[in-house]
Amino acid sequence: MEDWKSTYRLLTYCKHFFHRRLNPNFHNSKPFCTSGSRYHCSQPSQLVKPYICNYQQEFQTFKHLPVSLGTNPWNRCRSQYRCFASQASIIQRRPDFSTISSEDLSYFKNILGERGVVQDEETLDAVNTDWMRKYKGTSKLMLQPRTAEEVSQILKYCNSRCLAVVPQGGNTGLVGGSVPAFDEVIVSISHMNKFISFDKVSGILVCEAGCILENLIAFLDNQGFVMPLDLGAKGSCQIGGNVSTNAGGLRLLRYGSLHGSVLGLEVVLANGTVLDMLGTLRKDNTGYDLKHLFIGSEGSLGIVTKVSILTPPKLSSVNVCFLACKDYASCLKLLLEAKRKLGEILSAFEFLDHGAMDLVLKHLEGVRNPFPSSMHNFYVLIETTGSSESYDREKLDAFLLHSMENDLISDGVVAQDITQASSCWHIREGIPEALMKAGGVYKYDLSIPVEKMYDLVEEMGVRLGASAKVVAYGHLGDGNLHLNISTPQYDDNILSQIEPFVYEWTSKHKGSISAEHGLGLMKANKIHYTKSPETVQLMANIKKLLDPNGILNPYKVLPPSLFTESDLKEFTAKGRVEQTGSTLYIVLQ
Amino acid sequence: MEDWKSTYRLLTYCKHFFHRRLNPNFHNSKPFCTSGSRYHCSQPSQLVKPYICNYQQEFQTFKHLPVSLGTNPWNRCRSQYRCFASQASIIQRRPDFSTISSEDLSYFKNILGERGVVQDEETLDAVNTDWMRKYKGTSKLMLQPRTAEEVSQILKYCNSRCLAVVPQGGNTGLVGGSVPAFDEVIVSISHMNKFISFDKVSGILVCEAGCILENLIAFLDNQGFVMPLDLGAKGSCQIGGNVSTNAGGLRLLRYGSLHGSVLGLEVVLANGTVLDMLGTLRKDNTGYDLKHLFIGSEGSLGIVTKVSILTPPKLSSVNVCFLACKDYASCLKLLLEAKRKLGEILSAFEFLDHGAMDLVLKHLEGVRNPFPSSMHNFYVLIETTGSSESYDREKLDAFLLHSMENDLISDGVVAQDITQASSCWHIREGIPEALMKAGGVYKYDLSIPVEKMYDLVEEMGVRLGASAKVVAYGHLGDGNLHLNISTPQYDDNILSQIEPFVYEWTSKHKGSISAEHGLGLMKANKIHYTKSPETVQLMANIKKLLDPNGILNPYKVLPPSLFTESDLKEFTAKGRVEQTGSTLYIVLQ
Repeated sequence: MEDWKSTYRLLTYCKHFFHRRLNPNFHNSKPFCTSGSRYHCSQPSQLVKPYICNYQQEFQTFKHLPVSLGTNPWNRCRSQYRCFASQASIIQRRPDFSTISSEDLSYFKNILGERGVVQDEETLDAVNTDWMRKYKGTSKLMLQPRTAEEVSQILKYCNSRCLAVVPQGGNTGLVGGSVPAFDEVIVSISHMNKFISFDKVSGILVCEAGCILENLIAFLDNQGFVMPLDLGAKGSCQIGGNVSTNAGGLRLLRYGSLHGSVLGLEVVLANGTVLDMLGTLRKDNTGYDLKHLFIGSEGSLGIVTKVSILTPPKLSSVNVCFLACKDYASCLKLLLEAKRKLGEILSAFEFLDHGAMDLVLKHLEGVRNPFPSSMHNFYVLIETTGSSESYDREKLDAFLLHSMENDLISDGVVAQDITQASSCWHIREGIPEALMKAGGVYKYDLSIPVEKMYDLVEEMGVRLGASAKVVAYGHLGDGNLHLNISTPQYDDNILSQIEPFVYEWTSKHKGSISAEHGLGLMKANKIHYTKSPETVQLMANIKKLLDPNGILNPYKVLPPSLFTESDLKEFTAKGRVEQTGSTLYIVLQ
Repeated sequence: MEDWKSTYRLLTYCKHFFHRRLNPNFHNSKPFCTSGSRYHCSQPSQLVKPYICNYQQEFQTFKHLPVSLGTNPWNRCRSQYRCFASQASIIQRRPDFSTISSEDLSYFKNILGERGVVQDEETLDAVNTDWMRKYKGTSKLMLQPRTAEEVSQILKYCNSRCLAVVPQGGNTGLVGGSVPAFDEVIVSISHMNKFISFDKVSGILVCEAGCILENLIAFLDNQGFVMPLDLGAKGSCQIGGNVSTNAGGLRLLRYGSLHGSVLGLEVVLANGTVLDMLGTLRKDNTGYDLKHLFIGSEGSLGIVTKVSILTPPKLSSVNVCFLACKDYASCLKLLLEAKRKLGEILSAFEFLDHGAMDLVLKHLEGVRNPFPSSMHNFYVLIETTGSSESYDREKLDAFLLHSMENDLISDGVVAQDITQASSCWHIREGIPEALMKAGGVYKYDLSIPVEKMYDLVEEMGVRLGASAKVVAYGHLGDGNLHLNISTPQYDDNILSQIEPFVYEWTSKHKGSISAEHGLGLMKANKIHYTKSPETVQLMANIKKLLDPNGILNPYKVLPPSLFTESDLKEFTAKGRVEQTGSTLYIVLQ
């Protein structure tokens, strides 16, 4: 909570409610609720157990098979499969992956010491399970390196032994990318959490990948700077994981994506090579900018061990207002006006629909409706961040007045203090928790051109009728819709009405089936809905180039079917080519 | 000039000179010069002929050799070499590249029609020569496709015939990247210049790669938006070339690099594959974000044919001030203060030293010293861009007052109108022209951590003594130094004192030997000064994966020595493997 206090230390307090000056229908905005804040991070234990299908058949342990590609290793798979994601996808454990031996354990203990080799069941249970409790692996080993050199030694060894690896940061991902699918070795970067340097002139921070986002935010706050990244999971998530998943979050509208903010990375490749790309320069056009390959590749191309990031100076004035709109078209016009009129101080433009507000009011304790006398169809939360209290307030007031006059907003409140600002944010950020409490929920994180975004919600509503409640919210300023279908309980019939319709609709309208959550295990097989076959094929070729044995975060991001026998033969560049009869083999080193 | 007028249509006019209120030593800032503007783009014909070594030995035409890698094709090279760059690097024409045949011409005419196949000498002379007249190729053919499909057919054919290709946009590059080194086929994208779409809600522009930057700026200006990119060459340069070179320019401080702004690309690979990555989404985390590979790879991985880019709303208030500082430490403190105090409205922070100002005053006609009574050691140009005239002025005034009180600036003027703002910019932007007029010039485009940046200039001054004038200017806000050594004439002794010292110094201080110009032909062999061997090797591997025959912009970006026989054998993934005796061959398709 520390950073919340300091961020809002100089909050612009509006002396009077906006509605008093503009519209007698505006309601007095006393604190809407007394508990919770924007920075509240729910722990898994606080959540109801998700209902999503997650069964695992007993699977056999295969011995390490000699790697020859004369026959397809996947053809040898038998009953090893699991069902993941909302729509079932069956994956099979790659039988050519080794299983942990006592020699392996000795080797790792030799590198990391006893403390760096974790085998106790309780800890393993936690790190095998994802935040949503939707995905659970069966890893018997977690390694905790403290330096890039140790990560290098681990990966080099795992690569030579064909041991599959899952890199893990704060384990807060939502698509099953951060936990094992089967018995992969978990390589945790949590102990690599040192600050390395901070340059107060340029605002460039360099740190190890295991630094927790919240700690970085607090550190920078003391220095008079802000992280260009903020998200609900900040109390647990780590910067290495943020970079590896190209985390979006609440500040993207203002500060852009990590592809713009991250200046350099240190990454360890599957073969143990340490790639030093840890530049601290804002401009560097010397060759291909390879760090971008690792931003958002979900640990499947390399393990990020250090990060260099550009941080903007902290601005002292923050305003929050919560507005009601009669229809979606008004929300869009309001967005355009906000960009135009609030310009350089606009820092968030979030929206939620009637259904989302309804759920929050029903299921979250202490939340008060800012407009108690009537419900509205849409709600918008706008935040401004600037360097002048009086100017920002004037500007916001002018924008609100103009929007009222043009009938873009039908009601609204401006937060008067930290508590009210926090309460506004709590409505928006409490939606996921409210959805979990309401029963089963099918969650979709989509990017859709904003004009068409709400059409999907309406079509889905018509499609499902009374059988489910369709709820929408998200980062409207970024074109990011969080579409949620809330049901009393899990139902295969409902699922079959949602999928693949939701993906096909998104694809047809040139949207993305994963705006900010990534693909992980959940959507690896669905990448074609967003990316062209040629692009996906090139991704696979790059994966094969960087990780020829496919040991890094297997089964995830890309469809496993892409990695066929002939592909491996062609691209296993570091392999030794052998010929027997008319068949060429790649013998992995 | 259109956009200049419209950008400044609502310029904040300071009613009184800043100096009148703060400091009696401030001078009345009437127009410093009457000609030129920030947007003046010198044509090659206006420049004095550069002196840099540029000789070309007569070279033999090789027949197309059968591609077998049993012997290194480079070993077969004989007298084909040219000397490029300030420090001579010898490159050899790859003898395995074909030369144009009449069948090739027929094929291209069949695809593009007669008009798309350019062979007349005058046109070829122009497109063989770079903007600086420093590099000149001997291509006998320029192709002008009008669609991505035509580019695809061209590249597929060139790849199959092993014909080398140079993609060319506006040909405004400064490192020899946009012209042939030898007789490569020039593929010009100039005729692919259509606007495709513009979304006024999201600010996302989609256009073909051959659109001239200035036209895009003017189009957006009419729509109430701005390009996040602006540079001196905008009258000629094309967006495809800007993306391919990751152009920096004047708005980077405010809007960040193209890695942040470009949302999608369409790219044609060497084998003719059209990669559709033309997303128009702000957030899309589905797989590896491959477009970044093509941003800044200087046409060596693929030809960009369409671009989707996020554009911010236009802000109406622009202020420019020109300040004098007694020392470099004051410039740095001023930068920190500007970031802190001007915050969200700061849009440029440029600097020049005494030597640069001296040259401009001596060699550019009509330029008036803003501080005629005294010379200063350093000058800083600050621009703010915001949405409120009165507020921006207040803010700038407060910043200047604070900086005066803290002795960070020793003199200064605030532009009162468009002409004065233009004159301030003309001093900064006229430096390259002044340098060219002064005689010979050795130009270095470096990124260096700002605290150490000027140490290099001083060390270089001591090193060269009276034999040369060391002049420095650049985008201080971005850590980008343009280091120039001005001499009456070219001198090998001076060059040997500058290089490799300048690269070694930059490397030692973790800088970049090319901040924004790229590597091209000039610095391909110098990449190791900035990038680690492992990173460079991975770049080479990616080049081989995407362009196994190396036909795209050969000899550039990466050291040709990286592409050895064994590398080609290993990575020519699309090749057919054949065996004779104990030797494996890759037979290119």
